[in-house]
Amino acid sequence: MTDLRSRYHRLFDSGESTERIEFFSDAVFAIAMTLLVLDIKVPEIDRADELWPALVALAPEYFAYALSFVTIAINWMSHHRKFRVITGYTTGLIYLNLLLLALVAFVPFPTALLSEYAETPSVTLYAATLGAIGLVQLAIWGYAHRSKLLAPSVDSGVYRFVRTMGVVNPAVFLLSIVIASLGAHQAAMYSWILMWPASIIVGRLAQRER
Amino acid sequence: MTDLRSRYHRLFDSGESTERIEFFSDAVFAIAMTLLVLDIKVPEIDRADELWPALVALAPEYFAYALSFVTIAINWMSHHRKFRVITGYTTGLIYLNLLLLALVAFVPFPTALLSEYAETPSVTLYAATLGAIGLVQLAIWGYAHRSKLLAPSVDSGVYRFVRTMGVVNPAVFLLSIVIASLGAHQAAMYSWILMWPASIIVGRLAQRER
Amino acid sequence: MTDLRSRYHRLFDSGESTERIEFFSDAVFAIAMTLLVLDIKVPEIDRADELWPALVALAPEYFAYALSFVTIAINWMSHHRKFRVITGYTTGLIYLNLLLLALVAFVPFPTALLSEYAETPSVTLYAATLGAIGLVQLAIWGYAHRSKLLAPSVDSGVYRFVRTMGVVNPAVFLLSIVIASLGAHQAAMYSWILMWPASIIVGRLAQRER
Amino acid sequence: MTDLRSRYHRLFDSGESTERIEFFSDAVFAIAMTLLVLDIKVPEIDRADELWPALVALAPEYFAYALSFVTIAINWMSHHRKFRVITGYTTGLIYLNLLLLALVAFVPFPTALLSEYAETPSVTLYAATLGAIGLVQLAIWGYAHRSKLLAPSVDSGVYRFVRTMGVVNPAVFLLSIVIASLGAHQAAMYSWILMWPASIIVGRLAQRER
Repeated sequence: MTDLRSRYHRLFDSGESTERIEFFSDAVFAIAMTLLVLDIKVPEIDRADELWPALVALAPEYFAYALSFVTIAINWMSHHRKFRVITGYTTGLIYLNLLLLALVAFVPFPTALLSEYAETPSVTLYAATLGAIGLVQLAIWGYAHRSKLLAPSVDSGVYRFVRTMGVVNPAVFLLSIVIASLGAHQAAMYSWILMWPASIIVGRLAQRER
Repeated sequence: MTDLRSRYHRLFDSGESTERIEFFSDAVFAIAMTLLVLDIKVPEIDRADELWPALVALAPEYFAYALSFVTIAINWMSHHRKFRVITGYTTGLIYLNLLLLALVAFVPFPTALLSEYAETPSVTLYAATLGAIGLVQLAIWGYAHRSKLLAPSVDSGVYRFVRTMGVVNPAVFLLSIVIASLGAHQAAMYSWILMWPASIIVGRLAQRER
Repeated sequence: MTDLRSRYHRLFDSGESTERIEFFSDAVFAIAMTLLVLDIKVPEIDRADELWPALVALAPEYFAYALSFVTIAINWMSHHRKFRVITGYTTGLIYLNLLLLALVAFVPFPTALLSEYAETPSVTLYAATLGAIGLVQLAIWGYAHRSKLLAPSVDSGVYRFVRTMGVVNPAVFLLSIVIASLGAHQAAMYSWILMWPASIIVGRLAQRER
Repeated sequence: MTDLRSRYHRLFDSGESTERIEFFSDAVFAIAMTLLVLDIKVPEIDRADELWPALVALAPEYFAYALSFVTIAINWMSHHRKFRVITGYTTGLIYLNLLLLALVAFVPFPTALLSEYAETPSVTLYAATLGAIGLVQLAIWGYAHRSKLLAPSVDSGVYRFVRTMGVVNPAVFLLSIVIASLGAHQAAMYSWILMWPASIIVGRLAQRER
């Protein structure tokens, strides 16, 4: 009979179905996305004709809602895709996933901060949170590879391609932190749009080299 | 061996089971519906005999809660029905679905606004949000058809019937925006009730022509 | 070929798997239960030695949290049990279920009201909401029976037993509304405890007669 | 034919699939974890250069968020592991599980309290809540064993090992309550870190004796 520790580990520390982990992650993603709206407060006005201007003045709140919804949604899709080809789990994978969820569930705070104060500290905290989410996504992918949890259909070319693509977002957020630290927080926010062309360019390059 | 991009796309960009998408959508629908209640605040009163009048004065909040719960619920049913016959997904379908969820998760804000200020801007924003939800539902249905994601049991008559029925809600909400812009925001709100008879009439007509 | 309406109905208006409905319902139950805690606000104090008294003064909030958590939990169990033996669904069942969920998602408001003002109106609204939930549970059970959606293992004795048991809670809540309307709102709240012995007694009697 | 009560019990009071219970529990865990962020409020400042200091001053809020996220996450993992080997349920198991969920859903309140007032009462309430969660986890494990709900792969050595490990957390929280009651609430909070080495030491000892 094997010793206690190895029996315990075989029973509890790894498994073949990632269904409950995916479900749990989906719930956290969905709740974080839906809580974002709580930050858009009904404006307080005195006369009915102040309502349109007050609603227009909420533009930063709408922008922050849309921005965070989109970034969490992209991360959900990325998570979804990874777990389609992750065929099992270990305690290490669960820890990394929980770290990801802690960061995702934190997003409503930097979002609220950014919509209230479009200043360097808010931009920095927002970029740091989203950049960290991107890094943990990368870490999950690398971990799953090293721990042989990826489906055989993920050949090394596809593995490296996903890894390269996963670098784009953290790199852009890091760049924006540098820009914000130079005092140009507006430029830093605009730089986030770079993610889109950067993903396309890196995607093309990554396919060429493979 | 096929090239990297096509291997990547085969692995990640489409799939046969919509289960995780449905689950994720259900979570967002459920959370948005349940958050609506947070907008009904406990009234502040000084004497116990002010409580009944204060509770009665919350009538717009109850109305807004019921209205939004019902409209999100109807959209959930409509989503539920579509995905029963959608047999696979592509990245495009996921994007459309995320747009739908962003709008659904936004509903608590226009709801709170409407319960606080029953004025033209609130009515317009509410109708625009709900109308947009209806349009994205339509877009999902059309997209699934064009992308051959519908089950073979959905013949072209049923496809067109669902499409025609899906026009009713956005049309009524658009009409109400026009009415509200003429200054009659009360009439605009009452016009939403038209959705019920309009659905029945359009349903009868759509069956006749098919 | 059958006509359009019947083809549509066969595709969309009923189904054999209640899984997505149960999932959706579970999400609403879980969110409503978890939102209850948001009503317990951190007290504002000036000196550290005021913290214990301030925490003790929150007793009505703890009581309201526990009461609503337990009542929603009991309703979840009751819902869970019903849907174990409901083997399909129709549009009518979905409507009844959505009505149930609208009431369950509403519970945090009367709970917050009751913890703030233990007066006749709060007690009445709370009892009315919970009583209505019980009545809709009964209606779901009766509807499933009449629509032949119950598993064959539910014989008529078991069906009637569940129906009889389901009358206890609404009856006690109705009684408490009567008591509260006589001005005795404290007694009305205590009368809710009657549900426990009443369930046991009615359970014994219902078994005897069957 | 068996009598009504036993037919009822066979239909409703126990079952072989714990899937819906796990799902429901996961939802409560996920919502409680995600609601924690609502307690980190955007600071109110007058000038842009007050933002960094204001964000730094939120350190207790970040700490409380991280602490509660980690403790709920560890409890989710522990729950997840237990239910992997629990192969059925009874009404008693559901009651215990609901008690666990009521405590988990309560965690946002002591967390908010602790981040606002790092005083003896807050530390005590926090430790009492988390300690109680640990005790109910233990009770679930013991109940599942006594009710023969554990998979045969859980031999008595593994059962006792899990039980022994489950004592560590409640013991540390109880110890911290004693320390806090002596007036040393800072030391009490630091003592929570003991959980980590204590788990490792007890784990080693438990394996030796088995």
